[in-house]
Amino acid sequence: MKIDIITTGNHVTPESVKNTTVIVIDVLRATSVIISALKNGAKSVVPVTSVEEALETKKKLENVILGGERKAQKIEGFELSNSPLEYGSTAVYDKNVILTTTNGTHAISKSSAANKVYIGALLNARAVSEKVAEGGDDVVIVNSGTNGQFSMDDFIASGAVISEMLSIRDYELSDVAKTALLIYKAHPDFLSYIREARHYKVLMDLGLEEDIRLCLHKDLYDIVPEYKNGIIKLNF
Amino acid sequence: MKIDIITTGNHVTPESVKNTTVIVIDVLRATSVIISALKNGAKSVVPVTSVEEALETKKKLENVILGGERKAQKIEGFELSNSPLEYGSTAVYDKNVILTTTNGTHAISKSSAANKVYIGALLNARAVSEKVAEGGDDVVIVNSGTNGQFSMDDFIASGAVISEMLSIRDYELSDVAKTALLIYKAHPDFLSYIREARHYKVLMDLGLEEDIRLCLHKDLYDIVPEYKNGIIKLNF
Repeated sequence: MKIDIITTGNHVTPESVKNTTVIVIDVLRATSVIISALKNGAKSVVPVTSVEEALETKKKLENVILGGERKAQKIEGFELSNSPLEYGSTAVYDKNVILTTTNGTHAISKSSAANKVYIGALLNARAVSEKVAEGGDDVVIVNSGTNGQFSMDDFIASGAVISEMLSIRDYELSDVAKTALLIYKAHPDFLSYIREARHYKVLMDLGLEEDIRLCLHKDLYDIVPEYKNGIIKLNF
Repeated sequence: MKIDIITTGNHVTPESVKNTTVIVIDVLRATSVIISALKNGAKSVVPVTSVEEALETKKKLENVILGGERKAQKIEGFELSNSPLEYGSTAVYDKNVILTTTNGTHAISKSSAANKVYIGALLNARAVSEKVAEGGDDVVIVNSGTNGQFSMDDFIASGAVISEMLSIRDYELSDVAKTALLIYKAHPDFLSYIREARHYKVLMDLGLEEDIRLCLHKDLYDIVPEYKNGIIKLNF
């Protein structure tokens, strides 16, 4: 079994994920939000790629709450932004969360040609590693990236996940997977690397330090959301 | 001025290099070969993407020598393989070298929408850094990669070039550029990182250790080949 990384959602093609299990990572913040929402009792998260699609989807579902961001900030008319801190049980318990973000929700929908698509982040690094080890597929870690670009936060989180995966069983790593692992091993605190990231600076300038702290909390949760037929849930 | 890296030739689009100066790097071995050939007196190097195109181009030029590889080995009927050791002055002086390789020559031709396309490698890291600093463009370092994949050898060479560039003037680095620089700073010997590369192992298995040693010799040469209108030369 092999591990590869695609460093931005833009580069995901059906061919590149065919016959593999994908872990989609958007550590700051979409996949951290999705994991938090489902941990706190949301029934499902429906990732959509536009505000219009969010509003259309709302008409078809019951018990809906709208969340997401554009330029890292809440969308007008939406209840929740893209902060995992807002997705507590009071807000999301038993709800279907319709989520649209700039990078993460695109990366998820582009990965749908894979055998399995799991939602990963530092919050569930160990849990998602155990889940993929159960299957026999090669693994592609899809980094959402930021605006179509490589994003340091997703890259080091991939390294952390790979480190967990290797503690469970052997894998053959591609060159980019080896590089992410090296970066993680050199920066096990995350912040010494991530503070150089462009996206980190954007979030800090918006006063979202608490968000970042939560998103960098490795293995806080033990759940593994799965994306299937357009919906993310804990169990299908 | 900014520095970004595209980690495989496959991801180069006209849009991604428009209005920039590109440095194409295929450290093992195409751009190391091109630099060696021109240093040793070749009149030009003509990069082509197929064996057929090489043979067609030969008919149109005088004083031609054919070089290149498929699966890292010499092509039947060609005079030279893709080893920089073969491109000494006895072989290439005053010749037009027609070169076709699996990764490097593709990456070069895909970069042609840029304002300037320079040929870089560890062999000319300092020289190419000085050259791009003369212009005012943003810089995109195109890694040829290996078979469409991220390749560790090109990545750390990009880090070495970025380190030289920053010693000359300030640049704003993208996340992937910052990461390449970190990798280079953590592995200034190159080999402690590159020996994990898939492509390194392929070359070692073919007994090409001497090639690798030459390709990792930083700043051995002070020349900067340029690609323009389908031809690579030192001066246009």
